[in-house]
Amino acid sequence: MTSYTPSSISTVTTLHHTLASSLATLTMSSNTKLQWKGYAVHDTKQPDQLKVVDFKPKGIEDKDIDIKIEYCGIHTITGGWGELKQPIIAGHEITGHVVRVGPKVTEFKVGDRVGVGFVSLIHIYSLVNTHPNFQAHKLVLATTVNDARAGQRTSGYATAIRANELFVFPIPDALSLEQASPMMCAGITAYSPLRTNGAGPGKSVGVIGIGGLGHYALQFAKALKCDRADALALGATDFVDTGSKNWAKEWSDTLDIILVERFGLTYVSHHIPLSDIFATLKVHGRCIMLALPDDALPPIQTFSLTASGVYLGGSHIGSKAEILEMLDLAVKEGVKSYIEMLPMKEVGKAVQGMKAGKVRYRYVLKVDI
Amino acid sequence: MTSYTPSSISTVTTLHHTLASSLATLTMSSNTKLQWKGYAVHDTKQPDQLKVVDFKPKGIEDKDIDIKIEYCGIHTITGGWGELKQPIIAGHEITGHVVRVGPKVTEFKVGDRVGVGFVSLIHIYSLVNTHPNFQAHKLVLATTVNDARAGQRTSGYATAIRANELFVFPIPDALSLEQASPMMCAGITAYSPLRTNGAGPGKSVGVIGIGGLGHYALQFAKALKCDRADALALGATDFVDTGSKNWAKEWSDTLDIILVERFGLTYVSHHIPLSDIFATLKVHGRCIMLALPDDALPPIQTFSLTASGVYLGGSHIGSKAEILEMLDLAVKEGVKSYIEMLPMKEVGKAVQGMKAGKVRYRYVLKVDI
Repeated sequence: MTSYTPSSISTVTTLHHTLASSLATLTMSSNTKLQWKGYAVHDTKQPDQLKVVDFKPKGIEDKDIDIKIEYCGIHTITGGWGELKQPIIAGHEITGHVVRVGPKVTEFKVGDRVGVGFVSLIHIYSLVNTHPNFQAHKLVLATTVNDARAGQRTSGYATAIRANELFVFPIPDALSLEQASPMMCAGITAYSPLRTNGAGPGKSVGVIGIGGLGHYALQFAKALKCDRADALALGATDFVDTGSKNWAKEWSDTLDIILVERFGLTYVSHHIPLSDIFATLKVHGRCIMLALPDDALPPIQTFSLTASGVYLGGSHIGSKAEILEMLDLAVKEGVKSYIEMLPMKEVGKAVQGMKAGKVRYRYVLKVDI
Repeated sequence: MTSYTPSSISTVTTLHHTLASSLATLTMSSNTKLQWKGYAVHDTKQPDQLKVVDFKPKGIEDKDIDIKIEYCGIHTITGGWGELKQPIIAGHEITGHVVRVGPKVTEFKVGDRVGVGFVSLIHIYSLVNTHPNFQAHKLVLATTVNDARAGQRTSGYATAIRANELFVFPIPDALSLEQASPMMCAGITAYSPLRTNGAGPGKSVGVIGIGGLGHYALQFAKALKCDRADALALGATDFVDTGSKNWAKEWSDTLDIILVERFGLTYVSHHIPLSDIFATLKVHGRCIMLALPDDALPPIQTFSLTASGVYLGGSHIGSKAEILEMLDLAVKEGVKSYIEMLPMKEVGKAVQGMKAGKVRYRYVLKVDI
């Protein structure tokens, strides 16, 4: 049996740092060859009109990692997510290989297979927070979907990305980079609220809207051994039809957790029948919004919350620990990403296809620059 | 050391039942003297126009208890709580003495000091539920504030009430009946969400609107040894004034639980700045609506929930276990009901005074019939 003393741990850490520094030095020279090009949108009203542009990444910092991008996913660029500084190079759900590490990077080395999700950089990090995925007080995160907030290009419709190691995730060997890609945001956004709200044996989970997020929600609920993971497949292609008008009554008081990706329409939420959805929950059940629609939810009567003491919440990616756990579970339980692959030059088509709810269930773009 | 076998337990139970039955028999004769009179509203648009009427209670059942009412609290009779069958004898937050018990009542005997809150009877109880205070599937509760649903008179602006023992609570000797009265609904509605959402040492609690519910919320948060029980006293008498326009920013990311009784106006909620309130919560914090306003909450942008992964919920009284715990804590920690006492004939004045937000902090009516 080996015992570790504080001093021996310290030695290991020092070694690690030395190794990381030397790797960084080693790859410095190859960095000059790394191209920084991306597909840029110049008008958010025309998100399918993209042009390849050169760009300059922000200066590399101690904990930064440069990643050669191979795959990237799709998200909205419709303006509903706040004002965007144009032209935009967007794109999240990134996977690729590490090509350079900053001098204080300890978790990764050149050649590692990695992913980046919704967040790529921290701008002010004066708060020690156990939930770095949330934009909490004094902590400003730069997202991969809105580089206006970051003030610099750190997104995925590009040849490369520079990201802080806190938001870089190792991809298990058993998972291909294209399979892992949509798990970086869609996957974790579905997985995290299941874990946070106690999904597991004895719990029943409902999913409304089987799209990029919902198809993971169903699989992960099953992988977590929930008693029932029901697809209230109302949002899959259309609204509730007359034949299923009593759905809320039929499902009354049956579910512990409901994850709502969408109710028919994509990116729209003012029509979602929240009081009906709340009525399907058991006492103290949770209704969690998975997507970030452009508009507001319908007004809620407090009565509809109190009748069974239910909660309404929203999901926002997940912590690094949850992401690592999710990837492990995906390998172990065979959770699959149902993807449609396109060359990256078709990002505009993919944005439109996603908005129209056509994709089954998530686009992955392959870098072609 | 004594050990209890199933059979000895069974004997104890039998004895208990025998005792209860004999008590029921003993008090049968005195029941004929019990008057059933109440203050009735004939038009919910004129809730201050009341007349004393005789009424007949529903037939006594095995688990029912007759209580001679001494005090009763105030709630809304404005119609926003669903359609009411007129004339109404309403009134919750009842305290008094037991005068008769049904043959299967085991918890109480004649002469006990007891209280009744928002619920008095079960109509269909085919569901074994650990939260009998919630109106769950297959379980229909009759409330003390709306006897149309019950189809019979089971409320508090009266000389007596007949209630199921499940919803009758023993009042500790150290607590006067007038002090206990508003705890039966206002008190428990503030206390239950504190317990459910983990209030205690290390947690910070904010209260918006210091009225009948909020003044308990503050005291119970303190009694539960929360780090901070802050009064965002915005709802006490008026709206946020210009001088405190930055309140949400100043309180950003500071609170674990916010209990909202009201924001300025009573019974109105469409103006409550939910996104500002959510912004004052820490990651995974809870915003709990305490009151049941007549109108809907304002539309919520999903973003405002996801930014810190917060939850919106509503409070609806509490379980019997929580009520007993609350009463015990109130005695132990000196939680006080701040009440204004009126004779019951002034119920109309009290309803209006409450609606106008004039009372500091809860009316208690003394039976005068």
